[in-house]
Amino acid sequence: MKTVIVYSGGLDSTVLLYPLRQAGHDLHALSVDYGQRHRCELERAAAICEELDIPQPVANLSALQPLLAGSSLTSSEIEVAEGHYTEENMKSTVVPNRNMILLSVATGHALSIKAGQIAYAAHSGDHAIYPDCRSEFADAMSNAIRLADWEKVELIRPFVDWTKADIVRRGAELRVPFAKTWSCYKGGDLHCGRCGTCIERREAFDLAKVNDPTPYAENAPSVANLRANDWRL
Amino acid sequence: MKTVIVYSGGLDSTVLLYPLRQAGHDLHALSVDYGQRHRCELERAAAICEELDIPQPVANLSALQPLLAGSSLTSSEIEVAEGHYTEENMKSTVVPNRNMILLSVATGHALSIKAGQIAYAAHSGDHAIYPDCRSEFADAMSNAIRLADWEKVELIRPFVDWTKADIVRRGAELRVPFAKTWSCYKGGDLHCGRCGTCIERREAFDLAKVNDPTPYAENAPSVANLRANDWRL
Repeated sequence: MKTVIVYSGGLDSTVLLYPLRQAGHDLHALSVDYGQRHRCELERAAAICEELDIPQPVANLSALQPLLAGSSLTSSEIEVAEGHYTEENMKSTVVPNRNMILLSVATGHALSIKAGQIAYAAHSGDHAIYPDCRSEFADAMSNAIRLADWEKVELIRPFVDWTKADIVRRGAELRVPFAKTWSCYKGGDLHCGRCGTCIERREAFDLAKVNDPTPYAENAPSVANLRANDWRL
Repeated sequence: MKTVIVYSGGLDSTVLLYPLRQAGHDLHALSVDYGQRHRCELERAAAICEELDIPQPVANLSALQPLLAGSSLTSSEIEVAEGHYTEENMKSTVVPNRNMILLSVATGHALSIKAGQIAYAAHSGDHAIYPDCRSEFADAMSNAIRLADWEKVELIRPFVDWTKADIVRRGAELRVPFAKTWSCYKGGDLHCGRCGTCIERREAFDLAKVNDPTPYAENAPSVANLRANDWRL
């Protein structure tokens, strides 16, 4: 089965990549450059795909930046908030309609290379601030994708009802090289350990009781302090 | 009501633009550069919007061209077929998943500028070869767009069950300046009069009994011959 996977080089999509590859899918890992400030995720994606000998086309959507203004992930003028995802200020990391745009480009590419499936790694932990990670949204997109062409393309989203801890647990079973994946929205040399996605990543390892091999910045608070939610000065 | 209209500068979307403007919508006409060979439609769109004082942001998606290969509209290596839309060879004009990509970008832009509606001019005449113009597809997209964000965006598609002749008739009532719009896929100085979209345009005027003010290339066959489908040598 030829399959286009929406592939960021992050933890979730890497844990999705491995079992699909092991199951014999002919994978095409579509990465998207949307002008994100954490561009290092694209380098991580390229490195992992090169090692696994998986083609990794990059869709350059950075020209859309002025049209999709207002997110701290694409604007250098808005600071990436620190703290838990559930907090109001993390909403600034929402890129308007990102998942629909990614899935529509992935579907177009699937039709172009005659792939019968696209896969993405949205999971239930994202819901609080990312409406386009919900299973209702995935179901609606699956239906639209099925109707978009006479050739049928199926949307697979096995993690849509999983937590990130479930994904870490599954990744550990599959011996996914977590340290090679990138999550941090700040895009420094090391994961900052204190932005929303770093906190989510660290808590997921903690909850899954899996050793977190990620090197974090020196001043990152401890996981225990993260959970207590009292780490900010 | 702030409304993003997917606006190509073609006949259909121009006939949609006029009544929305007259009804007082605060219009933002989103045009898309997807590397189409008939780039003159973008110039027509810009000219019409400038005249009507409507902002016309352009989404530059031309970097997606290698990922959406196989269409004669974006590849200079594939010739634009001549003849009726219903014919097999016109399928080469399908840009994979074009409408979903356009609508997803329009939705992202609507969320970014806090517009509550997006509008597009898909119509029933497109169905034979464009599955993503069907009302089933529009319904599915409407549902996905509604779920994509906590802010609700509504998809309006008033022509989805109309023929192109219906659109021409409506445009004539509204005194839409048809001659300023562009349809031809070949992208020359004048409409060629013999590619699928030119034939569809000419037949629509003929069926609607509306005078067609479009200047066609000198060697274009007559409308009567088009209908007889015996014009090719």
